[in-house]
Amino acid sequence: MGMNYSRISDWILGEDSFDPAHLGKCEAVMSLGNGYMGLRSATEEQYLGETRDLLVAGSFNKFDPDEVTELPNAADVTAITLWVDGERFSLDQGTSSGYSRELNIRTGELTRRVRWTSPGGKHILFSSRRIVSLARQHDIAMTVSVTAEENDVALKIRSGINARMTNTGSQHFSEGEKRFYDRKYLQLVERTTQSGIDFVINAVHRFSVNGDAVALPADVNIDRRIIYADYTVALKAGECLTLEKYANVHTTRDLDYAGPDVRALQVQSLASLRESESMGYSALAAESAAAWAEQVWDTTPIEIEGDERSARDLFAVRFAQYHMRVFVPSHDNRMNIGAKGLSGEGYKGHCFWDTEIFLLPYYMFSDPPAARKLEEYRYLSLPGARRKAAENGYRGAMFPWESAWLDDGETCPLYAGTDILTGLPIKVWSGIIEQHISADVAFGAWQYGVICGDTDFMERYGYELIMDTATFWASRLDKGTDGLYHINDVVGPDEYHEHVNDNAFTNYMAHWNLCKALEYADKLKRESPALYERLDSRLDIESNCPKWAEGAEKLYLPQPTAEHILPMDDRFMQGEYIDLSKYKAQDFVGGIMKDYNLEQIQKLQVCKQADCLVLFYLQEDLFSPEVRKASWDYYVERTLHDSSLSLSTHAVMACDMGEEAMAYELFRKSCEIDLGPVMTTSDSGIHAASFGGIWQCVVFGFGGVRMHGGELRINPLLPKNWTRLGFTLIWQGEKLHVVVTGDSVTVKNLTGGKQVTLTVNGEKVTV
Amino acid sequence: MGMNYSRISDWILGEDSFDPAHLGKCEAVMSLGNGYMGLRSATEEQYLGETRDLLVAGSFNKFDPDEVTELPNAADVTAITLWVDGERFSLDQGTSSGYSRELNIRTGELTRRVRWTSPGGKHILFSSRRIVSLARQHDIAMTVSVTAEENDVALKIRSGINARMTNTGSQHFSEGEKRFYDRKYLQLVERTTQSGIDFVINAVHRFSVNGDAVALPADVNIDRRIIYADYTVALKAGECLTLEKYANVHTTRDLDYAGPDVRALQVQSLASLRESESMGYSALAAESAAAWAEQVWDTTPIEIEGDERSARDLFAVRFAQYHMRVFVPSHDNRMNIGAKGLSGEGYKGHCFWDTEIFLLPYYMFSDPPAARKLEEYRYLSLPGARRKAAENGYRGAMFPWESAWLDDGETCPLYAGTDILTGLPIKVWSGIIEQHISADVAFGAWQYGVICGDTDFMERYGYELIMDTATFWASRLDKGTDGLYHINDVVGPDEYHEHVNDNAFTNYMAHWNLCKALEYADKLKRESPALYERLDSRLDIESNCPKWAEGAEKLYLPQPTAEHILPMDDRFMQGEYIDLSKYKAQDFVGGIMKDYNLEQIQKLQVCKQADCLVLFYLQEDLFSPEVRKASWDYYVERTLHDSSLSLSTHAVMACDMGEEAMAYELFRKSCEIDLGPVMTTSDSGIHAASFGGIWQCVVFGFGGVRMHGGELRINPLLPKNWTRLGFTLIWQGEKLHVVVTGDSVTVKNLTGGKQVTLTVNGEKVTV
Repeated sequence: MGMNYSRISDWILGEDSFDPAHLGKCEAVMSLGNGYMGLRSATEEQYLGETRDLLVAGSFNKFDPDEVTELPNAADVTAITLWVDGERFSLDQGTSSGYSRELNIRTGELTRRVRWTSPGGKHILFSSRRIVSLARQHDIAMTVSVTAEENDVALKIRSGINARMTNTGSQHFSEGEKRFYDRKYLQLVERTTQSGIDFVINAVHRFSVNGDAVALPADVNIDRRIIYADYTVALKAGECLTLEKYANVHTTRDLDYAGPDVRALQVQSLASLRESESMGYSALAAESAAAWAEQVWDTTPIEIEGDERSARDLFAVRFAQYHMRVFVPSHDNRMNIGAKGLSGEGYKGHCFWDTEIFLLPYYMFSDPPAARKLEEYRYLSLPGARRKAAENGYRGAMFPWESAWLDDGETCPLYAGTDILTGLPIKVWSGIIEQHISADVAFGAWQYGVICGDTDFMERYGYELIMDTATFWASRLDKGTDGLYHINDVVGPDEYHEHVNDNAFTNYMAHWNLCKALEYADKLKRESPALYERLDSRLDIESNCPKWAEGAEKLYLPQPTAEHILPMDDRFMQGEYIDLSKYKAQDFVGGIMKDYNLEQIQKLQVCKQADCLVLFYLQEDLFSPEVRKASWDYYVERTLHDSSLSLSTHAVMACDMGEEAMAYELFRKSCEIDLGPVMTTSDSGIHAASFGGIWQCVVFGFGGVRMHGGELRINPLLPKNWTRLGFTLIWQGEKLHVVVTGDSVTVKNLTGGKQVTLTVNGEKVTV
Repeated sequence: MGMNYSRISDWILGEDSFDPAHLGKCEAVMSLGNGYMGLRSATEEQYLGETRDLLVAGSFNKFDPDEVTELPNAADVTAITLWVDGERFSLDQGTSSGYSRELNIRTGELTRRVRWTSPGGKHILFSSRRIVSLARQHDIAMTVSVTAEENDVALKIRSGINARMTNTGSQHFSEGEKRFYDRKYLQLVERTTQSGIDFVINAVHRFSVNGDAVALPADVNIDRRIIYADYTVALKAGECLTLEKYANVHTTRDLDYAGPDVRALQVQSLASLRESESMGYSALAAESAAAWAEQVWDTTPIEIEGDERSARDLFAVRFAQYHMRVFVPSHDNRMNIGAKGLSGEGYKGHCFWDTEIFLLPYYMFSDPPAARKLEEYRYLSLPGARRKAAENGYRGAMFPWESAWLDDGETCPLYAGTDILTGLPIKVWSGIIEQHISADVAFGAWQYGVICGDTDFMERYGYELIMDTATFWASRLDKGTDGLYHINDVVGPDEYHEHVNDNAFTNYMAHWNLCKALEYADKLKRESPALYERLDSRLDIESNCPKWAEGAEKLYLPQPTAEHILPMDDRFMQGEYIDLSKYKAQDFVGGIMKDYNLEQIQKLQVCKQADCLVLFYLQEDLFSPEVRKASWDYYVERTLHDSSLSLSTHAVMACDMGEEAMAYELFRKSCEIDLGPVMTTSDSGIHAASFGGIWQCVVFGFGGVRMHGGELRINPLLPKNWTRLGFTLIWQGEKLHVVVTGDSVTVKNLTGGKQVTLTVNGEKVTV
């Protein structure tokens, strides 16, 4: 079967043939959303193995006390079953031609089209359109059109609201009221079992034949967890029936939920549905497309020119921008970004260090208010971080490795997968000992404050985040027999090595964190005594400062070997070297886990991602070029990129190393994580951080942009096949347009509010 | 598509073509089981819309506080996915020939067979066999064979244990341990969320090619709620691969569960699986078939001879016997029979009056130990019945309308369906005011005691059931202005009329209950003073007796009209008469609910089932032949048989009326409830009570058997097309073989333990 799900032209991601054996890919990569909710792009007709997710940001629920909270899969409104003269419309039966499914990332609209001949020989032309409105955060709108080609057909259509959805079997909702109003409007209420969030979901259908409205009587059926209507219509040859379906989703967790109870929401949401219905699909779609232009494409456009490959490169970075808008809950500072965005159930909607290290840069430079919301989320989850520290015998703020709702605390599951040798479940240590997250959060807050020039943020939230994580580190250090402090028994970003001591990434980031707290304490005491006093009363800076200082001074910082290689930890370089080419050649990740169990892998020189290199990227001044180069060569050989985060960092690093060809190759691979031909990569959702990584490849890697020591720097290195790269950056409130060609860099200040000084290829420039 | 799911020959129910649009029918009617568990006969390959239920008797769980308990859908072991050269085996694709699926009710084995050509043109012969062992209550065994016809094929097989199953979306289990042992044995533990029952499910696969065992390496995968293995094998043309899969199910609710915790069960059940595996499929199947012969077919055989239709009639009653063995939990007196047996999620596994009125007769006459277990269940649930009485302000035992686990109390849901006019959910009143169940339970206990001659039962349990329900009735009567007692605001068996007063069925059954308690109190006081004293100390007979007597004496008993018609209640005959022919012609039940809401139906002369007639059947001496005849004519015209219980009672009554042709027609319709051509009737499970009804049609109706006034009576009336009817009855411990022909009745005492006196066609006979 010919499969080309990633036909790409201009703004369109398309597939030209349909393979029911691989539904997950398009469901995820073509998913729709607006930050409030994400909707997988499952087909209208149903197939075995589909995953029909509707996820509302922040609506976490815990199935039972032994599970962690996750984003529950809300009731589905997208399934529409069609019978043509009694035969169910399904592309694995009969014959199809002219198939296409397209996501237009410029407008956020999903369309499908196919000519279908039923097994019984009836011909129809099927087409559909669907949006999740970017202008109305609660709204989903869709159309299905059926044209009777050549023959009369009797159509039966079933459509409604289905709350039988689960998260791979876990049901997060109790049934609430199911109602219909005016024999027309369907409403279903469901409540999360543990967090007690009521969801109100409404839907209404409207029909027309050849453009003229027709009133089809609804045969309404209500059963357990489901409400739907059946409609029948006889079409003459040449006639076209169009069904418009308007649906909306509200929850009692919404910021705009006014109370007092769900009944108010039932009334209000129904009124809102009537309004959307009266606008009609085209107007809603146009309004949403305008929001896409305004919020994304006109604000921070990216241009790439070059050879025939460059169009695909441009699409990849725009596609990253598309998804980064789809999954960012910029409307609500109580939420963050899940590792799979809102496009699937993978990682349960939890956020990780991915936000600070991989995604935050995009938002800081493109959508500062969204970036601020993400940082505020960390501030609002400080109570949980402090509780986690206390529970582990530490002080200050120890951030959860996996974070969900504000007061959920650590949500990393205790077990995942199965040991291939023993048959026993594998313990996940990240929630306990993957501790670098606390420094990453501090690093993100600092970056945000500098890049966005947001002193209000720093004063309200940023200093506190940096200082209280420093307090955690000071309390967490282990005194060694050498008189130095060590950080023992951790797992670094390279999760193939657990229970290591002195992971370089962790130690240097902790060191940075302690130093940054000291620096700010000193600065605030001198420059902002009132603020200092307020913070001191909350964080006891006076007595913590000496501890930060002692920690920073005596923390053991791993040093390069004689061969200039920075040891990843106290153990890695003594491990066994093995040939990784078998695993590098596999078209799926984690293949090594089928041959070795984790205990065995820990004794090998193999990296999931090389965390030393990530350290070089975040703190580029720590080591000499010799150390960076030698370490690069050493670790790249030993790295499997079994984390989707790995490729893009390596691509940016390759640019820094001047290795343009390798950078481009890694960038392409990075794009292929979701856009590549492997059909199973995105089954449980797209890779949110990798989209941040793709943008970083382009802007930080090839564009050479970096915030360095509080200043903006641009050292571009275009791939050979690009002739021109243009992008827009928001730097401390000023919008800069940067154009890079083979031999020039042009920077324009589009805002012109104040002068911006930056370094371009080593020279200071003011715009 | 040609559809003939009910090809019937001898002991075989077969379908010759497969329609994926109607999966529910065969899943249910061909379901397997052994009273411990029921397994829907879903196909190995999966289809959209399938319902893959594995229900373990008595394992009730409540999804959330607002739902009632139900039998949870346990992890599935039956799904086996097969890829032929990469193409998924599925009968809605490619082309098939020679399809058959057969249930052999004599052996309890399900088999399938089909030649399939993949869309890509590969030919295979697929066949499968499956049993739920009647000899080993925890065991499921199955085989799948694939023969490479004409071409070599590469096969991939996926099989395991899938705990993502739900009850129409409600997940009743928390995940427990998932393990594999020896890279071969799969084990999954799950625990019901509220009742805390651990289920341990094991499975193992064994392979052979052309009969020679082969060891295929298992690629084991463990994910959320699922554990499975993938196997691959290359078959040369002409080779046949056979997969044997052995599985078993144990729970911590099992009587034979010894504790101390689930781990013991994990060990023990795995050992048991190894034993079954070592026996092999054929031996397990033969052992189970032998149990079928011993427990059912050799014990209480039924023979029917006559014209060509009689073979189908014979199959229908054997089919009833088959299912009555499949769903009766005769191993455990803490369980009863669900309205859908163990073949589907309908009615949530709850038992109703169906047990006493429709099913108990079969077990009393065919399997007295099973009947006793069902009656003991009622005794064990007395605490709940007493609580229900107390909660409603009454005394004694008020049995739940719907009963599940012993201490669940009333489990009738509060709402079901939706009002077609208002769009609001419909309140189910049965749990509150369908009160005849308490008299039905007493009636069942009395019948069991007499028919099975079980004085031990009566002394331990029976008298108490009869007396404490009498106490309930005495406390529940409403004093009228006429000085009489009335039973106001009830719903009788005819549930189309709610909130009626003086429902004839209810009043007469309550009256019987009061009188029977008085009779026994009097008898025991005289004949068994020690027993009387023990009962008196528990039930306070002394002070209750006068209340029973007053109730019995002053209870208003509806009387026939001048036209000899018994009024069903105080309202029915004043209702509006409408023409029901539209609804009688519909091939689905409940059609009137699409035109009228319940409030409107209550004002019409329309019966779901005519409960007067059920009363005539249970208490045949109450009224004169004139009244019985006039009432029969009146109600039959007004009855829609919208309850599956209705047809068989009416058939038996028709025999009593001498209306042989109508009796036969109603009997046939009764058989068609599950065996008929309408493909949706059994989606949520077979109709347990209707199987009891079918047996009653044959033995009580055409066979003319009745227990009357404590004596056995036989007044046969064979259908015109039957020449001979033979059946076996167990009467007070003696096994009687009865043969009825057109002009003779022969009764033989097969046991010969003691003489049995009975009345045959009005004449006393002793055998």
